[in-house]
Amino acid sequence: MAVASAKQHAVAIPQTGLEARLAIRSGEWTGPTSGIAPGFVQGNLAILPGALASDFMRFCQLNPKPCPVLAVGAPGDWRLPSLAKDLDIRTDLCRYRVFRNGELADEPTDLKKHWRDDLVIFALGCSFSFEDALLQDGIELRHITCGTTVPMYRTSIQTTAAGPFHGPLVVSMRPMKPADAIRAIQITTRFPAVHGAPVHLGMPEQIGIKDVMKPDYGDPPQINKDEIPVFWACGVTPQSVVATVKPEFCITHYPGCMLVTDRKNSEFAIM
Amino acid sequence: MAVASAKQHAVAIPQTGLEARLAIRSGEWTGPTSGIAPGFVQGNLAILPGALASDFMRFCQLNPKPCPVLAVGAPGDWRLPSLAKDLDIRTDLCRYRVFRNGELADEPTDLKKHWRDDLVIFALGCSFSFEDALLQDGIELRHITCGTTVPMYRTSIQTTAAGPFHGPLVVSMRPMKPADAIRAIQITTRFPAVHGAPVHLGMPEQIGIKDVMKPDYGDPPQINKDEIPVFWACGVTPQSVVATVKPEFCITHYPGCMLVTDRKNSEFAIM
Repeated sequence: MAVASAKQHAVAIPQTGLEARLAIRSGEWTGPTSGIAPGFVQGNLAILPGALASDFMRFCQLNPKPCPVLAVGAPGDWRLPSLAKDLDIRTDLCRYRVFRNGELADEPTDLKKHWRDDLVIFALGCSFSFEDALLQDGIELRHITCGTTVPMYRTSIQTTAAGPFHGPLVVSMRPMKPADAIRAIQITTRFPAVHGAPVHLGMPEQIGIKDVMKPDYGDPPQINKDEIPVFWACGVTPQSVVATVKPEFCITHYPGCMLVTDRKNSEFAIM
Repeated sequence: MAVASAKQHAVAIPQTGLEARLAIRSGEWTGPTSGIAPGFVQGNLAILPGALASDFMRFCQLNPKPCPVLAVGAPGDWRLPSLAKDLDIRTDLCRYRVFRNGELADEPTDLKKHWRDDLVIFALGCSFSFEDALLQDGIELRHITCGTTVPMYRTSIQTTAAGPFHGPLVVSMRPMKPADAIRAIQITTRFPAVHGAPVHLGMPEQIGIKDVMKPDYGDPPQINKDEIPVFWACGVTPQSVVATVKPEFCITHYPGCMLVTDRKNSEFAIM
């Protein structure tokens, strides 16, 4: 989920994933993470009890567009060595959300008092990575231009269920001129690990969106007359699905406060 | 230009490019070429006097989407060895159109009496190749389902001029559901040598098409309510541009009677 733009901080903007994590760990950087460590992959975070982990992993595998798995931790392990060398998931995000039985219980800045030996970390790809590629190609992203949160919608498209996990696909929307939409499809196709190509364009009603001006999450869009809405599978999907399950315990990142890794966005381009 | 579907012939359908050319050369196959030599590249043909060839080559280089060059012959040479081993351009198409000063002068079944020592052959990519890839992926092509000619439109998009060659881009249109349109963009992106990705989708008026139901060439489309129009650069563009120049002499293929080569469509996929 990419839900906030970088705000001015008095401190220097971290330029690498490691700099970002160290600044966050020390409390020097308090979020959001959009715009920091440019070029480095940021990820959505979900932490689940071991009893639910294998079903959730299977859910992600069945629904790779909304749930592209970047890394899964070993039970109880707070590290993700394939994504970052010096990483402690308990301290390296600016803020977290802790849920008990589906209810928001805490929004701490570290997980030290919440950690359990059976917890499994899931790091999922995030739209920041493909947005970086789109911006580099000169494609305008309206929500960034406007300084708003990308609009997101629950759709009539169902994810493929696994164990208790099921629910509707959530999509994010970026309005574009048709030629830019075609180019954006080409570019995001190169990034299957971070949501990949759009799932839909034009005709919001076909995927159960009654009014594109009234998103379920994020801010209402500004769509110009010469633009069509382009819809990507969104990392809010797994959060929405987990919320439906109401697990006895789970942790996610706080909106806009992502996991910052040592991997470069360009590493995830398949060509 | 792909403007005709295969009709029933009493003779066996040629299965390779060479079989197709030999059957055409002997008069056994009289056209059209759609559906013969499945999997083999078919091309648009333009033959111009040497005095115009370098400008036309530059025009194609500047406008690769409507004018993707498969091969250019040496002056006076009726062969194209990079496309086919046993090929005589004077006999190996079912039918030709011969223009003098921009006026249609003849529609012969061979070029023996029209050939000149200064003529240069241009073989240009054709939508058959990418349509083959779309059909193999299970995407419906409405004009094929309906047995009609793909609708084509002169647009307000100008080609980049070279010497005397200039004029509007002509596009072909295939209506698709949004998800199929996204997939079709991915597939045709792999085939830059045969028109490549679409140039536009939705919103025909943005590219100067006043009524999508009234094409400038081909048959009116059938567009379902859940579909959007997807527009590809079309091989009729160079024909239209050449017609504008009114060269003292030029030859093209007869609509639907393409050059059949020894190259496979799959060879032209870039990945």
